[in-house]
Amino acid sequence: MATIKDIAERLGISTSTVSKGLNGASDISESLRQAVLDTAVELGYTTRQMRGRDRRKVCLFVENMDYETPEEFGYDIILGFRQVAFRENFDVTVFPVTPSFQSTEKYDTFMLKHGFVGGFMVGFALQDDWMSQFNVTSIPTVLFDNYIRKNPLVASVGSDNLEGIDDAIVHLMELGHRHIALINGSWRSCISEQRRQAYIDSMTAHNLPFSEGTMPYGYYVADSAKDHIDRLLSMGITAILCGNDLLASGVIEECRKRGVSVPEELSVVGFDDIPLAARLDPPLTTIRQDRTELGKSGFYTLHSLINRIPISRTMLRPQLMVRKSTAQVFTKA
Amino acid sequence: MATIKDIAERLGISTSTVSKGLNGASDISESLRQAVLDTAVELGYTTRQMRGRDRRKVCLFVENMDYETPEEFGYDIILGFRQVAFRENFDVTVFPVTPSFQSTEKYDTFMLKHGFVGGFMVGFALQDDWMSQFNVTSIPTVLFDNYIRKNPLVASVGSDNLEGIDDAIVHLMELGHRHIALINGSWRSCISEQRRQAYIDSMTAHNLPFSEGTMPYGYYVADSAKDHIDRLLSMGITAILCGNDLLASGVIEECRKRGVSVPEELSVVGFDDIPLAARLDPPLTTIRQDRTELGKSGFYTLHSLINRIPISRTMLRPQLMVRKSTAQVFTKA
Repeated sequence: MATIKDIAERLGISTSTVSKGLNGASDISESLRQAVLDTAVELGYTTRQMRGRDRRKVCLFVENMDYETPEEFGYDIILGFRQVAFRENFDVTVFPVTPSFQSTEKYDTFMLKHGFVGGFMVGFALQDDWMSQFNVTSIPTVLFDNYIRKNPLVASVGSDNLEGIDDAIVHLMELGHRHIALINGSWRSCISEQRRQAYIDSMTAHNLPFSEGTMPYGYYVADSAKDHIDRLLSMGITAILCGNDLLASGVIEECRKRGVSVPEELSVVGFDDIPLAARLDPPLTTIRQDRTELGKSGFYTLHSLINRIPISRTMLRPQLMVRKSTAQVFTKA
Repeated sequence: MATIKDIAERLGISTSTVSKGLNGASDISESLRQAVLDTAVELGYTTRQMRGRDRRKVCLFVENMDYETPEEFGYDIILGFRQVAFRENFDVTVFPVTPSFQSTEKYDTFMLKHGFVGGFMVGFALQDDWMSQFNVTSIPTVLFDNYIRKNPLVASVGSDNLEGIDDAIVHLMELGHRHIALINGSWRSCISEQRRQAYIDSMTAHNLPFSEGTMPYGYYVADSAKDHIDRLLSMGITAILCGNDLLASGVIEECRKRGVSVPEELSVVGFDDIPLAARLDPPLTTIRQDRTELGKSGFYTLHSLINRIPISRTMLRPQLMVRKSTAQVFTKA
């Protein structure tokens, strides 16, 4: 369990200032007090005052996603969610869930049994048992990167994939590329389908060639790159968009093994901008999802549903981070 | 200017209870206090405490929309926006704007000159001068029923038209209708384009026939119906979706003039559910937009942008209100 000293060290302030922040003393600025509380939430430090009796409970379910360290995709989403939930007097339980758990326990039953007034679902797959239950759930529920039609108690939160992918394709076009592939994430995922459609729409809008062969499905891991790289290179592809940064790191690695230089001979674009992206060699051009803000928006959307505002969808704008893995198209002499 | 007595009468409580609510007395429930404050905002009653010095200013611009009385479409949108803005310590100026004003005054200049930290735009048309300025504005701005790409300081709020129109078409199919027309709102409007696409998508998904002739543009007034009704009836259309409730009231009136009975010979569906809809003869089946919640979501989205959360879009679910203007399809003997 974290101590006041941990919070003080993280923020570079004295322990007495931390105490003031935790106890709501008046001789500390509001923004510093908020930073103390946000850090307390991040480090898991709580006081009796923070565990007041009037707090309501929500549950954040995670599946298919790493979130234990700041390096991993889910960490900031969960942190952003917990930080704003805390400010609004909600307690958050983070619950890793599996397909088999979903097949033994009904979602609504689980929520009612444990007194949760709302749920935030991160990383669910289309075939998960609970996904069909969300069509009829009576519990306010927000899905990260998934979408359910018609149930006014269920909303979706995610990035605007169409804009993100179009930004990347326009960037590559400006560098002279026309033969651009998408190594997508997993098949049977709502987000993979959205990105595939975004790729099709953008390539069509810019009159660029594409086919089933230029938009294969992969997995969200580096190792998935090797299944596709030879075929795409042999097709004359000069730039590859990847379903996430790990997959992009795999593409760069496979190119290195084959003596294909990035970005001189192949441009590579990632997705997400996890901390690793900037440290790759070359540093990765990628479509940034602001995960802390996505987590915060997840909570605000859930809070709206709990207050019976029938939000259907909240979308955030991604941002193209141009680094060194993309360059002018390579033309053979 | 409203008085404490006006607030008391509206809520059916004593003036002393109103005073307690306005002054933050502790022996009044939080929900009653909120109702007193919400009503004070609606009636335009303010105290010195309510006009505190730390309040920030936002501007709500209205064009092409009636909003003066609760009967009119814009009233609840503006009220919902003002009520939550007040709670969050923002002052709202409601500013009716015209195309000619937009051509003489730049948006950002106007906002900076008057110290507004954000804008909410209701009823703008695609060809408005300010619409192109929103692509590059540096002022947090939320557009009701309009959408701007890529600018992280601009977001969109509106109803999920695809779901609303599909709900109505499914309802009509269940009544046996196949020949369903859409008399849309004005041409050159973002929302008309969205609804046209929603109609095309839904009719296609359900294998129903449609053509350019079954989806004419009209105007958002009753009088617009007469331009289309004869042609649609002669085409064998048995049900008409309308761009708003006023247009639907016009369709019913034109049918009455021609001796065509609604719903026996023609089913009619409106859009919005303004108070008039339930009072029409027959009471109108319509796609309800919860305008108070849309206004509230407009403010929350603007607040997010002001806090640099790059929301792109907030969508709310509409709700089909089934009344008496739709019935089993009429088949000639």
